[in-house]
Amino acid sequence: MNEEQIRRLLEELRDGSLTVDQVLTDLRKLPFEDIGFAKIDHHRTLRRGFPEVIFAQGKTPQQVVAIAEGMLETDTLTLATRADEAVYEALAARFDEVSYDHDAQVAWVGQLPAPDESVPPLLVLSAGTSDLPVARQATLIARAAGCSVQEILDVGVAGLHRLLHYREALDQAGAIVVAAGMEGALPSVVGGLAAVPVIAVPTSVGYGASFGGLAALLGMLNSCAGGVAVVNIDNGFGAGLMGAMICRQSRRSNP
Amino acid sequence: MNEEQIRRLLEELRDGSLTVDQVLTDLRKLPFEDIGFAKIDHHRTLRRGFPEVIFAQGKTPQQVVAIAEGMLETDTLTLATRADEAVYEALAARFDEVSYDHDAQVAWVGQLPAPDESVPPLLVLSAGTSDLPVARQATLIARAAGCSVQEILDVGVAGLHRLLHYREALDQAGAIVVAAGMEGALPSVVGGLAAVPVIAVPTSVGYGASFGGLAALLGMLNSCAGGVAVVNIDNGFGAGLMGAMICRQSRRSNP
Amino acid sequence: MNEEQIRRLLEELRDGSLTVDQVLTDLRKLPFEDIGFAKIDHHRTLRRGFPEVIFAQGKTPQQVVAIAEGMLETDTLTLATRADEAVYEALAARFDEVSYDHDAQVAWVGQLPAPDESVPPLLVLSAGTSDLPVARQATLIARAAGCSVQEILDVGVAGLHRLLHYREALDQAGAIVVAAGMEGALPSVVGGLAAVPVIAVPTSVGYGASFGGLAALLGMLNSCAGGVAVVNIDNGFGAGLMGAMICRQSRRSNP
Amino acid sequence: MNEEQIRRLLEELRDGSLTVDQVLTDLRKLPFEDIGFAKIDHHRTLRRGFPEVIFAQGKTPQQVVAIAEGMLETDTLTLATRADEAVYEALAARFDEVSYDHDAQVAWVGQLPAPDESVPPLLVLSAGTSDLPVARQATLIARAAGCSVQEILDVGVAGLHRLLHYREALDQAGAIVVAAGMEGALPSVVGGLAAVPVIAVPTSVGYGASFGGLAALLGMLNSCAGGVAVVNIDNGFGAGLMGAMICRQSRRSNP
Amino acid sequence: MNEEQIRRLLEELRDGSLTVDQVLTDLRKLPFEDIGFAKIDHHRTLRRGFPEVIFAQGKTPQQVVAIAEGMLETDTLTLATRADEAVYEALAARFDEVSYDHDAQVAWVGQLPAPDESVPPLLVLSAGTSDLPVARQATLIARAAGCSVQEILDVGVAGLHRLLHYREALDQAGAIVVAAGMEGALPSVVGGLAAVPVIAVPTSVGYGASFGGLAALLGMLNSCAGGVAVVNIDNGFGAGLMGAMICRQSRRSNP
Amino acid sequence: MNEEQIRRLLEELRDGSLTVDQVLTDLRKLPFEDIGFAKIDHHRTLRRGFPEVIFAQGKTPQQVVAIAEGMLETDTLTLATRADEAVYEALAARFDEVSYDHDAQVAWVGQLPAPDESVPPLLVLSAGTSDLPVARQATLIARAAGCSVQEILDVGVAGLHRLLHYREALDQAGAIVVAAGMEGALPSVVGGLAAVPVIAVPTSVGYGASFGGLAALLGMLNSCAGGVAVVNIDNGFGAGLMGAMICRQSRRSNP
Amino acid sequence: MNEEQIRRLLEELRDGSLTVDQVLTDLRKLPFEDIGFAKIDHHRTLRRGFPEVIFAQGKTPQQVVAIAEGMLETDTLTLATRADEAVYEALAARFDEVSYDHDAQVAWVGQLPAPDESVPPLLVLSAGTSDLPVARQATLIARAAGCSVQEILDVGVAGLHRLLHYREALDQAGAIVVAAGMEGALPSVVGGLAAVPVIAVPTSVGYGASFGGLAALLGMLNSCAGGVAVVNIDNGFGAGLMGAMICRQSRRSNP
Amino acid sequence: MNEEQIRRLLEELRDGSLTVDQVLTDLRKLPFEDIGFAKIDHHRTLRRGFPEVIFAQGKTPQQVVAIAEGMLETDTLTLATRADEAVYEALAARFDEVSYDHDAQVAWVGQLPAPDESVPPLLVLSAGTSDLPVARQATLIARAAGCSVQEILDVGVAGLHRLLHYREALDQAGAIVVAAGMEGALPSVVGGLAAVPVIAVPTSVGYGASFGGLAALLGMLNSCAGGVAVVNIDNGFGAGLMGAMICRQSRRSNP
Repeated sequence: MNEEQIRRLLEELRDGSLTVDQVLTDLRKLPFEDIGFAKIDHHRTLRRGFPEVIFAQGKTPQQVVAIAEGMLETDTLTLATRADEAVYEALAARFDEVSYDHDAQVAWVGQLPAPDESVPPLLVLSAGTSDLPVARQATLIARAAGCSVQEILDVGVAGLHRLLHYREALDQAGAIVVAAGMEGALPSVVGGLAAVPVIAVPTSVGYGASFGGLAALLGMLNSCAGGVAVVNIDNGFGAGLMGAMICRQSRRSNP
Repeated sequence: MNEEQIRRLLEELRDGSLTVDQVLTDLRKLPFEDIGFAKIDHHRTLRRGFPEVIFAQGKTPQQVVAIAEGMLETDTLTLATRADEAVYEALAARFDEVSYDHDAQVAWVGQLPAPDESVPPLLVLSAGTSDLPVARQATLIARAAGCSVQEILDVGVAGLHRLLHYREALDQAGAIVVAAGMEGALPSVVGGLAAVPVIAVPTSVGYGASFGGLAALLGMLNSCAGGVAVVNIDNGFGAGLMGAMICRQSRRSNP
Repeated sequence: MNEEQIRRLLEELRDGSLTVDQVLTDLRKLPFEDIGFAKIDHHRTLRRGFPEVIFAQGKTPQQVVAIAEGMLETDTLTLATRADEAVYEALAARFDEVSYDHDAQVAWVGQLPAPDESVPPLLVLSAGTSDLPVARQATLIARAAGCSVQEILDVGVAGLHRLLHYREALDQAGAIVVAAGMEGALPSVVGGLAAVPVIAVPTSVGYGASFGGLAALLGMLNSCAGGVAVVNIDNGFGAGLMGAMICRQSRRSNP
Repeated sequence: MNEEQIRRLLEELRDGSLTVDQVLTDLRKLPFEDIGFAKIDHHRTLRRGFPEVIFAQGKTPQQVVAIAEGMLETDTLTLATRADEAVYEALAARFDEVSYDHDAQVAWVGQLPAPDESVPPLLVLSAGTSDLPVARQATLIARAAGCSVQEILDVGVAGLHRLLHYREALDQAGAIVVAAGMEGALPSVVGGLAAVPVIAVPTSVGYGASFGGLAALLGMLNSCAGGVAVVNIDNGFGAGLMGAMICRQSRRSNP
Repeated sequence: MNEEQIRRLLEELRDGSLTVDQVLTDLRKLPFEDIGFAKIDHHRTLRRGFPEVIFAQGKTPQQVVAIAEGMLETDTLTLATRADEAVYEALAARFDEVSYDHDAQVAWVGQLPAPDESVPPLLVLSAGTSDLPVARQATLIARAAGCSVQEILDVGVAGLHRLLHYREALDQAGAIVVAAGMEGALPSVVGGLAAVPVIAVPTSVGYGASFGGLAALLGMLNSCAGGVAVVNIDNGFGAGLMGAMICRQSRRSNP
Repeated sequence: MNEEQIRRLLEELRDGSLTVDQVLTDLRKLPFEDIGFAKIDHHRTLRRGFPEVIFAQGKTPQQVVAIAEGMLETDTLTLATRADEAVYEALAARFDEVSYDHDAQVAWVGQLPAPDESVPPLLVLSAGTSDLPVARQATLIARAAGCSVQEILDVGVAGLHRLLHYREALDQAGAIVVAAGMEGALPSVVGGLAAVPVIAVPTSVGYGASFGGLAALLGMLNSCAGGVAVVNIDNGFGAGLMGAMICRQSRRSNP
Repeated sequence: MNEEQIRRLLEELRDGSLTVDQVLTDLRKLPFEDIGFAKIDHHRTLRRGFPEVIFAQGKTPQQVVAIAEGMLETDTLTLATRADEAVYEALAARFDEVSYDHDAQVAWVGQLPAPDESVPPLLVLSAGTSDLPVARQATLIARAAGCSVQEILDVGVAGLHRLLHYREALDQAGAIVVAAGMEGALPSVVGGLAAVPVIAVPTSVGYGASFGGLAALLGMLNSCAGGVAVVNIDNGFGAGLMGAMICRQSRRSNP
Repeated sequence: MNEEQIRRLLEELRDGSLTVDQVLTDLRKLPFEDIGFAKIDHHRTLRRGFPEVIFAQGKTPQQVVAIAEGMLETDTLTLATRADEAVYEALAARFDEVSYDHDAQVAWVGQLPAPDESVPPLLVLSAGTSDLPVARQATLIARAAGCSVQEILDVGVAGLHRLLHYREALDQAGAIVVAAGMEGALPSVVGGLAAVPVIAVPTSVGYGASFGGLAALLGMLNSCAGGVAVVNIDNGFGAGLMGAMICRQSRRSNP
């Protein structure tokens, strides 16, 4: 409810077409729907321009279905991240057009939109093959947000020529998501080569002193290259969303 | 040295105007100048579109001056971050037009450019008055990169109405930098309100279980709001640079 | 055994109705019953005014039943926290009137008392749907202690309007328990809005750099809002007990 | 600005005594005053019933004085915590009636109120003599909030008889603040003895594996006694404020 | 091989009854037997006066049996700690007189000796019922070393009277082992009451910020009571061994 | 006040030579003296058989002097650990016979007793020369407790022959204190060689990944040698006290 | 593609046998083959002189087989580390000559080469029997690299004579790999005895405060012996590879 | 004292030229000299082929001089690491030919030897100018060990072309020391390019989440490149020593 709407309410009050209590009630009626254990925020899609996403971890399949039902009253596409097979099956039993990416542990109801060709593509890189699930999360969310995505896997720093082979892709992207585990060095190298913002996503790939991705996380936070920001360990979703938001800035009407 | 330049070299070789050894020499001549203890990367400014920055911590004032001398052969503006008074004084003794922001511990040689009005402004928020030095760093770097910046301080979550007062600024920004110490909750709240990318910068403001900014850092990495990415503790510089890069995306020619 | 009782013992000794050894024996006879692997503290209920609670984790169902048997000799209500199905079944096989809340992992023998309407209610908030188990623990324990409880779930800081909708409930509560995982920012926001003590309980909801709830814990400890204190990760029990104790202060006869 | 005030505004609009723009302006005029680097929240005192407090660490003495000036326009008592001598001297040079407790690093302008004898006292305990500064912080803030306070120092668990000597004080308090460093065991013992809420404040007293108070903090969070909640390391201020809020619950009119 | 033996060797060499090579061979023949994947140290029993113990974790049942076979060539009692059912069954299939304590996860071949009544008993305390497995480990090892042991469980600090009930036992012990999880405060209280060395063993009982026993470990290391030393988390074996060594000091012939 | 004294009190009550109130008063008069900021525990010396020790860190020199005054009313020897020059000078200005060991940061009033030759000596080892201050603390406290002490420095594991040279001393000691920083490996090696209890004291000697002694602490807690227990980092005092208590066990009359 | 090859390309261009575009194409054709989810680096074997190794953790058996297929086009031996039974079975189903070491979790296709007798052997030591899997990894990789290896297990520091028995092997090795868990002290002792580089590999053997190998890791990093370097926890592969590289230095033609 | 010497002793005993007691005395006379607070190990130089080094941190200048005096009885070159100006001045006051490198905090008595041209050079790289002190330490120690050293500074991964410029130096080195702070990514990149062992030394250069070099340390331990081993944070000394030992392997006579 923006200032314009409030102004209109007040004008109707002034003009006598609404009572004080009606206006108070409208001011109080906030744009979310209460389904008991979760509050569905219909306005968020409008505010951010992205489909609403359900964080499925720690929720029962029934809870996820109920939240999706609420969302699909106003949206045509809903995603669930950290969704296991049971969540997918519960969604598939309830809705048509349910898809599931097993690697990324992402399920969605509805169709991914066609890429908006007016914005530059998002480039999604991974250091190793084992980082694929996290990279794929980023890809899916960005595609759900209408971005075109190029995904290049296994270009870690121990074989630099593999990355250097793709210099052109680095130059064309609107933003770059880099998923890496172990020492997490790839974002620094990419940050030194690329001219666009880099979103680094540490993965929990590794063992021993990787401490579940902590080593990669700290490495990325301490990157000596400018233009690198970091999201949570294994948070491909967050990286892809941030990346898509940046790519879409290019469509922004200048002030 | 891009492919076009290499092609031209090869054509000159083919045409006999260059010898094999001359071409090899040129291929080897990489675009940095060696001043002994530091390699100056003249091409980086071109690649990233930002003035080169000297990380002054752990360097002697003499080293900073020498690096700045190398940079100023090709650039007209050079900044030094984490620069104490001694660094400033050494720069001021050597160059004209040296400025210093004591709060931000940033010194610069040359003039900050006029803001590029064709890109949306960067909004820089801080949770408390004590976060000012980090926020100011972000402001200065973004201004050095040609962005206009709006700085709003002391709008932490313990008094929400202070932040809600500035809803309009949130909507107009091209990107938002949020500096916060202690529990670092402000970026999550801003991320829930704003439609543009948020760069969260944890500060070391706090004591006890803040562990030098670790609490704020972890809080920001775990933000439940989408579109939030994080830089190192007290890294106002990195946040401002990332923010400016995002704002300037809006100027990007669509593909 | 308070001073009054000791005085009476001594008087009986003085008057010859008790011998020195009898008095020594009585002084030594402490108010707990030994059942071998656990000491049951019957006086604790009196001292604290709360039913005694069994921490079931790490105990066999048989041990829990035996401890409950000892307690129910003097109490009419006994709770077991961190109780899995096996504990519940062992209790149900032994006692009548056994209840179990699967979400909260709490089992109890006997009936929860009717709420004491003379004290203000405890408000229990959760940031997300996944925090429900911890919030429910707090609710059950506070109800066992005779408090009325209002439970509001999924009002996290990424959608502030959801919380602001419930301003009235914040004002009416005697104390507020806030369960939140991930960045754990909700207690700070609530602490800035409410006039009563806030007990923050971090949950292990999250992944990656949440480090099992550490991020939320540190965030809450560093809250910039006054009037916020913190209990252990996932310790809904402790938060609910503390909350009930505070609510009941209002019944306290002034000195 | 509460609902009642909004209703009145709307009625005046309906009645024609205010225009739409006047109402919009009033709705927008939030109750804080902007002094550039800090926003002063005059309504907070009303909301919480406590004097506003300045966190002086990381602020210049000049900033603290300016913030205090803003506060004292509407309040008669203002405190600054983590205030060193320089802050005190700057306040003393600007205001009358400035006091300073060197141990607690607390300065205040105005007079501490007479204790409200209608509420039970706050008991402040410390495990050792070295914990005095933190305990004293709690004492001062609680007194500023109108509570009477009893302070008992050096009653750590290695000499239990010292604590047991004060059983009566434990029974009379409305709430108990316990400051302890090293292993931080005192709150558990007090929590087992007392019938009222215990606010545990870990101190950084110790060395080696105390890790700046981390050992005490973890110990207190893991307390096996119910009714214990914890604040940040060395946060005597927060503990005292929470304690005073609990003590004052007894004055609360029952619903 | 002590100096006396070496002297005798040299004398035999001097007297011509041994050759240089024979002496060199003897000097080289070290007192352990090599069974391929483990070196059995027969002399250790003599040196320490305790049965040799096999750390079974990370070894296959077959490896444990083979090591036990080597040991039982010279010893009559062998213990395996951290031994699961499979290890017990493999030992029981190979040897007579095999016993197993399921709580303590300790198996042994041979008979525990009768307690040596000439040394004071070892007192083994636990804070809670859940700490029993660790306490039992200590008990078994000390009994294997010939000590008499008194075991008192569930005397944690939240109910001090339970511990104070056993003051006499504290006074009679030669040493005291204290097992405690959660905040690990019991050793500090016992250390303040007892006149003999206290060996504190933190247990992994707890959850959340107990971090697998870290909270208890740090608490014990920071104990404000003198005469307390600490072993690894859950290391009942080490605590019992240390305790038995101290108790047996009383048998030591004075110099 | 032990049971015998209480029995006598009760008998006098029975016999009419004391009134009930007199007995109550005596029961209440606990054996500590209150000097405001510290409680002096005169009975502790009796209970533990050691001089009382003042932890001077975090106390003002005036506080240390006042506590010492209280102690010296009943004791003839008092020590202050973590005492800097200022503490020493304040003690020297107030008392006669004040000594100070600058390395160990220990000051004492009164004379160290002659060693009790009826108990075996305490052996104090250090891995490096830099560990001397911690080792010396142990030596002084043990000597204050009446033990004879042998101190051998700089016998770290990188030059094993240095340690093996002193095998005889290992065999003659009643207990062994081992101070080591860096990797803290010496206690494991000593524990494998010696037949008596080893108290390991990690020191903060080192840099980088020593993390202030954490590496040594963890190493010692994980010692693969039995009969090793650990005290806090740099806690030479605690190690020496524990060592002396063990040595004196040999004097204990068997039950 | 080295300078010599580039020079030849340029000469062919100069001589007209290649066109500019052909040269550009060759310069761009980097020496790796893209199989979609992994980039195979055929040149690496040449550069390092070792067979390429597949890190199997986090990859499906199908992915490992596909990568192995690519490698075996140019190599005759390929290893997979952290390979479980499923990976082994998938390899065995696809290729001939597949071997598997269950302890080390290493599978390989092709034959290990005969040891190169012209280089000194690698010595692989383990502190305990439980460290065998990590030690075996080192052994296999070094043998795959053509080194002869001597493996000696269970020579931990708690029984020094076991290690001292093998002094001769220490002297003959070209490099020494030392695997140890718990306190990780063995590398320091070996480093003090041996004249060649020691590669320390911490293992996750242990419990409690071993924190998954962190204690051993920190111990080894802080080794007081020179000539010791460390690899990741349980990284027997890395240690063996480094050890083999050092041993083969002896074959290096001097400059 | 090696076996050969022992054999000779025994032969002299057999032949009657030595008595049993003389032999025992000689066997006991271990090759170190005791100067009270430090044991000087004259044989170590022989064993390792390197000058002995004094770790000066935590030692007084007087202690360093005394240890140096002992060493210089048999050596001609002695180094002190972590030596401040005071140590240097004390050495310069006592000995001739004292040198000091202020950057590296290394002092030495005697002359660095001429490089041994028969071994390949050690390459010492640093990621940034601020890493120079650590890199210089490595250089000095390796030169003290007789190696030739090439030092290349400021070739961090954010500007890859700077490193790629020096490919030839990577190929010619016998081993490579890489010093890097912040994210510590350089060793991974170098490890992927070079064919020789890489010793990675993390530096404490950085701030915030670098946690004193921890980020770089973890990054290096998790390096995805083979042939990389790690030493302690800021341990340039250890890295240089390890590097020199590896380079000198090439001189080793093959077995």
